[in-house]
Amino acid sequence: MPEPSAIRDTVASYLKAVATGSAADVAALYAEDATLEDPVGSDPVRGRAGITEFYSALEDMRQETELLAVRVAGDSAAFHFRVRTETPDGAAEIEPIDVMTFDEAARITSMRAFWSPEDVRSTS
Amino acid sequence: MPEPSAIRDTVASYLKAVATGSAADVAALYAEDATLEDPVGSDPVRGRAGITEFYSALEDMRQETELLAVRVAGDSAAFHFRVRTETPDGAAEIEPIDVMTFDEAARITSMRAFWSPEDVRSTS
Repeated sequence: MPEPSAIRDTVASYLKAVATGSAADVAALYAEDATLEDPVGSDPVRGRAGITEFYSALEDMRQETELLAVRVAGDSAAFHFRVRTETPDGAAEIEPIDVMTFDEAARITSMRAFWSPEDVRSTS
Repeated sequence: MPEPSAIRDTVASYLKAVATGSAADVAALYAEDATLEDPVGSDPVRGRAGITEFYSALEDMRQETELLAVRVAGDSAAFHFRVRTETPDGAAEIEPIDVMTFDEAARITSMRAFWSPEDVRSTS
């Protein structure tokens, strides 16, 4: 089981990569056969190629992320964070709660994102 | 799938029951064959009898709860909340993130609590 500190480091690296990294940078934090379910209830994406494709849709957007709270338990973490995305029409903010599991090397083996469209706020 | 509003209502009822209800009041919000894993990584408790027993340990403590954030997705919710427990030696606070799934009637079918002992704060 990875150390809690290693799990926290991966969560921090994830939020940094989502904000300023490439899709490949984000996907590199995942294990090769990881799954991604975003939002929860949608069909999961499996494997790093699909995961890279998922994040490539966000790659050209200017995003800022901020960790609001993280709780580590066993090989898992749940964390609440803010994502602010700049769009031509202004900014959109959402504060999802994500749940991740991790392997021995603290790579992400699964990610599930809890949010719904009604949680998105438009800001100026 | 239950309506998001029904899921939010159950989460609110849960936090109220944890604060002021009996163990049976809390367990009544669970489906008969529900599972409870608190904290994540521990052996899950299965079924309402075991779930009632789990909460009976908390029954005689004075507790206050406060919802900090809830995100609903599909038949699931993740929520961040504060529990303040009065003890003879003072108060202890913790702010876990719980993940629950729900049946058609918005009864809890599973609960997983993300926290670790280092998240507990002593307050006066």
